[in-house]
Amino acid sequence: MKEWFDNYDARDWQTTTEGTVRFALLGLGWWTIDVALPAIANSELAEVTTLVSSSVEKAQRLAADNGVEHGISYDGFHDGEAADAYDAVYVGTPNAYHLEYVETAADLGKAVLCEKPMESTVERAERLVETCEQAGVDLMIAYRMHTDPAVRQARALIEDGFIGEPVSVYGNNSQPLLEMIPDHDQWRVDPELSGYGTSVMDLGIYSLNTARFLLGRDPVTVQARMSSHHEAFSAVPDERSGALLTLEDGVTMVTTSSQRAQEDTQLKITGTAGQIDMHPAFHGECRLHLSRGEVSGTVEQTAFDSQREMREEFDYFADRVLTGGEIVADGRHGLEDMRIIRAIHEAADTGEIVTLD
Amino acid sequence: MKEWFDNYDARDWQTTTEGTVRFALLGLGWWTIDVALPAIANSELAEVTTLVSSSVEKAQRLAADNGVEHGISYDGFHDGEAADAYDAVYVGTPNAYHLEYVETAADLGKAVLCEKPMESTVERAERLVETCEQAGVDLMIAYRMHTDPAVRQARALIEDGFIGEPVSVYGNNSQPLLEMIPDHDQWRVDPELSGYGTSVMDLGIYSLNTARFLLGRDPVTVQARMSSHHEAFSAVPDERSGALLTLEDGVTMVTTSSQRAQEDTQLKITGTAGQIDMHPAFHGECRLHLSRGEVSGTVEQTAFDSQREMREEFDYFADRVLTGGEIVADGRHGLEDMRIIRAIHEAADTGEIVTLD
Repeated sequence: MKEWFDNYDARDWQTTTEGTVRFALLGLGWWTIDVALPAIANSELAEVTTLVSSSVEKAQRLAADNGVEHGISYDGFHDGEAADAYDAVYVGTPNAYHLEYVETAADLGKAVLCEKPMESTVERAERLVETCEQAGVDLMIAYRMHTDPAVRQARALIEDGFIGEPVSVYGNNSQPLLEMIPDHDQWRVDPELSGYGTSVMDLGIYSLNTARFLLGRDPVTVQARMSSHHEAFSAVPDERSGALLTLEDGVTMVTTSSQRAQEDTQLKITGTAGQIDMHPAFHGECRLHLSRGEVSGTVEQTAFDSQREMREEFDYFADRVLTGGEIVADGRHGLEDMRIIRAIHEAADTGEIVTLD
Repeated sequence: MKEWFDNYDARDWQTTTEGTVRFALLGLGWWTIDVALPAIANSELAEVTTLVSSSVEKAQRLAADNGVEHGISYDGFHDGEAADAYDAVYVGTPNAYHLEYVETAADLGKAVLCEKPMESTVERAERLVETCEQAGVDLMIAYRMHTDPAVRQARALIEDGFIGEPVSVYGNNSQPLLEMIPDHDQWRVDPELSGYGTSVMDLGIYSLNTARFLLGRDPVTVQARMSSHHEAFSAVPDERSGALLTLEDGVTMVTTSSQRAQEDTQLKITGTAGQIDMHPAFHGECRLHLSRGEVSGTVEQTAFDSQREMREEFDYFADRVLTGGEIVADGRHGLEDMRIIRAIHEAADTGEIVTLD
């Protein structure tokens, strides 16, 4: 099996090691502070100069704690405060706030790295993409799996024919959200802030997008079921969900996601000649289990975690901003996920097959 | 995690160690000869006295080769030849032949262990069940996962609350049929002999039935997609298939199966508090990966294979025949799988949700 790994380069995307992109980070939750901030501290091409939050006090306190120059409020951000100090923004706020911050970033001529899902609805996501296109600013959606070395290695293996023709895909992403964040009023269960729902928007998107990235094939038809059981999820339809999709070329995909279940992430691609099973798949630690005919093995990804994954993502984005190179996970790519998620919700509502154009 | 395994008895079903059930084996393919026959040779409660095949020469040759007393033809079987030499029949023929052999066995007053799926259509399966009920003979459908110690252990863990409330189930069963059996005219791809199709009837049934057995919950709604690609599968609709089911209590199940793919079997049950992942799951070697909160571990099943699995199944069946005890996988249980498989094919045909009564 070793011959499949010859000449594999984990950073096959890198085109420059020169220059620095200075970031403003918006939305100072645990992900931004505990994962993104230290990730950028280790980055070769990125640095943080500005933190933005609802309260100027919180922003300034976190800026001082983390050796960041500026701490400003969202109002200050909209007014162009400290705008000379950063070249790009990272938008890590609740989904429904992405658009307004991206609009300001575009007005200011800043490059945008926007968390996924890119907005709360397809319509708002379309406005977000058009805003960046009209302003001529770079837009990338933060699919950090795209620059995870294990995922890139899996993608290269599939391109090289390791699995033969793809036959089926299975993805799961489940977590005990209420144990991780006990607040029942959190934004992920509030459709005003999260959008269509919670388990597909927040978790299922990993299976869907990573499958698209690995196979280079998009969903064509969607069927789905979803339900909510615990009172904390009474406002969203999908505490748990399941979907059955057909991808281009007749690849069968099934996926489940749940916000109230044992943590588990898996993405398994089975082909006519081999299989790539990523288990765990999505939260920094990605383990590849490979099999082809009678031969099988496991590739352990050493010393990799969410921070390391985020560093790859920021370096990739900075590389593209510095060189003007093509961004794979651009706004149009992210928009397709929004359409798929909307189709999954529509399919669950109607019980029918929804066709994606 | 060790506390969950205290007092676990792999043969919690056993009620007798006395007596012998003498078998006639019908359908002398590789499974019967290479797996079932040696399994019974090691059995405590079963023995083989008669082999039945289309050709009396083949039956007598295999009987002589394996130290079995009688080798007879299907015609001889229907005529009651050697009927005093056996108490029970094992029906391992192509699906569409089960009924006629079971009818004769019932006429002869023999107990019946019939391979799954129990027949080619729901209607024929219903006749099969009614035939045995009217004759008052024992009927068991050969779901060997029911007596696999790993599966029974998983079931006991679920009953004991290890996973909390079940949330989702994933099952896959794929194999490269044309590499295993190169003949393109084999019965598994001939709807006259196999029934509704090939991947769900032959492979998907493992995921469906084992999930029913583990959770004690049956499917309520079914959606499905299927397609055939290779010319060898042109007569059946499901070289590959995917289904999305809702089980009782709102458990989400997704399943895939393919007759032309890398071999892989997995059955994963995720609950609110834990997960049981059987991977591999179905072909003798069943490995349990357990997780509950932050704790996880793997239970290796040592020295277990398809023969050992078949021995458990024959011993269980013999135990019930000898004692008159209840058979869990009885005809009514198997009939439900036939209805589920028919619903999967109907759902794939119509694109609609099919509801099971």
